[in-house]
Amino acid sequence: MGIRGFCMRISDLSRQAGVPVPTIKFYLRERLLPPGEPTGRNQAIYGEMHLRRLRLIRAFTTISQLDLTSVRTLLTAIENEEFPLPELFEIVNRTQLPQEDSRPDNAEALLSARDDVEQLIEERGWRVDPDAPVSAHLAQVLVALRRLGCDCDIGFFTAYAEAAERLIVRELDLLSLEGPDRAAAVARSVLLEVALISTRRMALEHHAELRFG
Amino acid sequence: MGIRGFCMRISDLSRQAGVPVPTIKFYLRERLLPPGEPTGRNQAIYGEMHLRRLRLIRAFTTISQLDLTSVRTLLTAIENEEFPLPELFEIVNRTQLPQEDSRPDNAEALLSARDDVEQLIEERGWRVDPDAPVSAHLAQVLVALRRLGCDCDIGFFTAYAEAAERLIVRELDLLSLEGPDRAAAVARSVLLEVALISTRRMALEHHAELRFG
Repeated sequence: MGIRGFCMRISDLSRQAGVPVPTIKFYLRERLLPPGEPTGRNQAIYGEMHLRRLRLIRAFTTISQLDLTSVRTLLTAIENEEFPLPELFEIVNRTQLPQEDSRPDNAEALLSARDDVEQLIEERGWRVDPDAPVSAHLAQVLVALRRLGCDCDIGFFTAYAEAAERLIVRELDLLSLEGPDRAAAVARSVLLEVALISTRRMALEHHAELRFG
Repeated sequence: MGIRGFCMRISDLSRQAGVPVPTIKFYLRERLLPPGEPTGRNQAIYGEMHLRRLRLIRAFTTISQLDLTSVRTLLTAIENEEFPLPELFEIVNRTQLPQEDSRPDNAEALLSARDDVEQLIEERGWRVDPDAPVSAHLAQVLVALRRLGCDCDIGFFTAYAEAAERLIVRELDLLSLEGPDRAAAVARSVLLEVALISTRRMALEHHAELRFG
């Protein structure tokens, strides 16, 4: 690929991105970062695209704590323009979901939780597959909550769905409609999920202190 | 400790909790699970408390994907009644937060993001330390978002804070005021955070399909 705009050596790239040279070399070996333009034996120059890519990788690994397999999956999906945005987000949504817990002794509880999740989906009028990984995951959480004696029924999660919907609409409003930047869309979605978690935890600290402090 | 209520052998415990015997033995060796009551050489019986504890460990490890160090920290904090609830939640909130990224080239961006987070805290009237781990974490997310070209200012997160607050109030309403069950409070908080993530992802799938499908 051509190096447009400014170009730099690996040491400059390291300084600009705040990523140590050995880490950059590791990403190059792992092909998470495309090679630079060779300028001689063992020398190459890197462009703005490398800087952007490096920042993306760092956001995924340090803020979202994704493993390298997930990072690779996301980068590949971003680059494959054949994936329309909804599919791209589906791939994003599949990161960090735990393996499904399908022990036979769990089957009945899981079936009932899946029905509940389906009810939530219908109630909201969402076009979401009740068997999609995210839906199955919510059902798993419900099963665990119930096993631990929390009797919150699916109605409890209506407020969660409403809140989530409001925030997602705001998030998608940030996307420019003509030719949205796919990398930015993915990075934003991954980071805003983390922001939601932090904000929730801050609210928890405040309200726990208010009630029990 | 005495085994109140029903008691069972390790194989029954395994069946009831849906956790393989070798895994239970591992938890016993790691002292995540207290020993049973010895009934003979290499034999012991286990009680309801073991079953509850086992379910708690499984929820932490399989649904929330916590590492064993975090699980141990949570279990210790739950058992230490000297920690009042607000401190207990602070410990919960510190799990899975990444190490702070304090590279010198980041200092200015981080300082400005911390000011923004402080502004959000003041705006909400939250009694939360702007230097607490959760607040510092939100600042890190802001820095990463800005580095990636997302110009969402702190006002963007007012909606996040409002939504989070509403859900946290509902969550704390589930706690009984006289002698709340500390283990249940922690488990619920950890699991409801995961539920919020799943619900957000479901909303993302629906709205991405609606706009771009």
